[in-house]
Amino acid sequence: MSTMPGEKVLIALGGNAIKQAHEKGTYEEQMRNIRKTCENIIQIVKKGYKVAITHGNGPQVGALLIQQEEAKDIVPPQPMDVCGAMTQGQIGYMLQQTLLNMLRREGLDIPVATVVTQVLVNKDDPDFKDPHKPVGPFYDYETAMRLTKEKGYTIRKVKPTGDKPYRRIVPSPDPIKTVEQKPIKILVDSGVIVIASGGGGIPVIDEDGFLKGVEAVIDKDLAGERMAEVIDADIFLILTDVEKVKLNYGKPNERDIDRMTVNEAKKYLEEGHFLPGSMGPKVKACIRFLEETEGKYAIITSLDKAAEALEGKTGTWIVRE
Amino acid sequence: MSTMPGEKVLIALGGNAIKQAHEKGTYEEQMRNIRKTCENIIQIVKKGYKVAITHGNGPQVGALLIQQEEAKDIVPPQPMDVCGAMTQGQIGYMLQQTLLNMLRREGLDIPVATVVTQVLVNKDDPDFKDPHKPVGPFYDYETAMRLTKEKGYTIRKVKPTGDKPYRRIVPSPDPIKTVEQKPIKILVDSGVIVIASGGGGIPVIDEDGFLKGVEAVIDKDLAGERMAEVIDADIFLILTDVEKVKLNYGKPNERDIDRMTVNEAKKYLEEGHFLPGSMGPKVKACIRFLEETEGKYAIITSLDKAAEALEGKTGTWIVRE
Repeated sequence: MSTMPGEKVLIALGGNAIKQAHEKGTYEEQMRNIRKTCENIIQIVKKGYKVAITHGNGPQVGALLIQQEEAKDIVPPQPMDVCGAMTQGQIGYMLQQTLLNMLRREGLDIPVATVVTQVLVNKDDPDFKDPHKPVGPFYDYETAMRLTKEKGYTIRKVKPTGDKPYRRIVPSPDPIKTVEQKPIKILVDSGVIVIASGGGGIPVIDEDGFLKGVEAVIDKDLAGERMAEVIDADIFLILTDVEKVKLNYGKPNERDIDRMTVNEAKKYLEEGHFLPGSMGPKVKACIRFLEETEGKYAIITSLDKAAEALEGKTGTWIVRE
Repeated sequence: MSTMPGEKVLIALGGNAIKQAHEKGTYEEQMRNIRKTCENIIQIVKKGYKVAITHGNGPQVGALLIQQEEAKDIVPPQPMDVCGAMTQGQIGYMLQQTLLNMLRREGLDIPVATVVTQVLVNKDDPDFKDPHKPVGPFYDYETAMRLTKEKGYTIRKVKPTGDKPYRRIVPSPDPIKTVEQKPIKILVDSGVIVIASGGGGIPVIDEDGFLKGVEAVIDKDLAGERMAEVIDADIFLILTDVEKVKLNYGKPNERDIDRMTVNEAKKYLEEGHFLPGSMGPKVKACIRFLEETEGKYAIITSLDKAAEALEGKTGTWIVRE
């Protein structure tokens, strides 16, 4: 089983593609990671695949929320949807400049563009009533109480101990549609490498026909799947920090999955093999890709195995049957 | 003299289109301004013009630099080019959502997209040797000295008195080329309303064939002119806070200019009628538009007179002869 050069690949980059967990997130660190990331993407482009890219923004939006909080008496903080838009500009720029430089080095005249992307969610999504996604800085008890009162934040204790065990919890509603679908499709069809739907997209609801940003975050793989629908991707390639998805993750009988059908994936998901905030949404996104599009394969693998995985040599392949 | 519906207009929005000078820059304030701005743009779209948009980012990048400074012990500050990219995401999102909502209200199915934009400058631009553009927060003497020493900033006293009279000075090099010219042109030609080159674009130099961000800011009208070249604009429309450009600005014999030729504009510019940091670059951008493109007219007017100006009823028109 192998993919074919010429096919359209939507690449969803994991957090480690931009910032490693142990790093502080300096510009130099992020650019070093991004250069590694782009070397892997360039390999895929050089093989002749048509590539579009989405990415996470967790650490970057977290940093921005801290900066806003620290300067709140001098500069008015912006709502979370605006912060998400800012990180799309930030990460998109770093990726697009690096890709462009590497394409030039390879003598490839392929344009790259980042499109600021809103993603529609349902205003009645159950997650708005029962949010579960922690974001931004950790707080002590006093700050947690103040923010609950002043801003109406939902704040929960997310660590058992420590000075600052509290964190804001926001909804993570299911993405329904990529709002900027037409511009994204036009660019991809014209041969542009498009970076879009960054950080899962800017979450917006439709209120009486008008789009409105909401304080929420969208899972970037589920939003990436919507982007894959938009561009009619043949392959949905999720790059993360493991080469293959595990069965019985973290248990003595843990083992790699080389290939699973949609039905097997659904069964494993139900049986709790995949962590809710981690591999769960990735597998869900792959299932949705195969069920709701004409796409051929969904592959989950690590960044440095991306090109090999497309050749069928590694990664976890999710297939229709 | 009048423009024709169907013609392509590059609209360069001034700072007041997004944030008024007396405002703090809350989300609510910015959205209120943006709604007014977009109502004016929608009038132009409804008349049948093809519209592309650029905008400034001074107050937004200033706010971000303050936030970065206040949180510098917790979160690593990003360089100025990255901050510029962030404000492109921020302002692009607010404009694109608002425009999209108003287009829907009018029953117009026109896509809108913000493209993160790098703008090439010459690494030997004289402004890198002798910078003159103040950015970011005001500093006291101690902070000014520390930043000069630690970060190598060029810092100058920009106010005669006060606790914090110092400010960072960065180069404002002349824009040479819009890097993302192909994606922008593809979208405009496909009927998409494109927002690009925000804040004058992210300044990059070409170092041995590789693009590299620099700590500088580009004048948004001069960069907007490069974007007008890219999209083959018929009209370059600069919207600012005055209805017409003045001759003898600020003097007893001040008077409105209704129309000037490129040669007259050059003469007035030389004679010092236009302020260097304000009307000067706008007039320069208009001259360049008429000299270096096939474009028909350049018009400088206020936001609320934009549609009237296109009909020839007001504004300062700059024409070839």
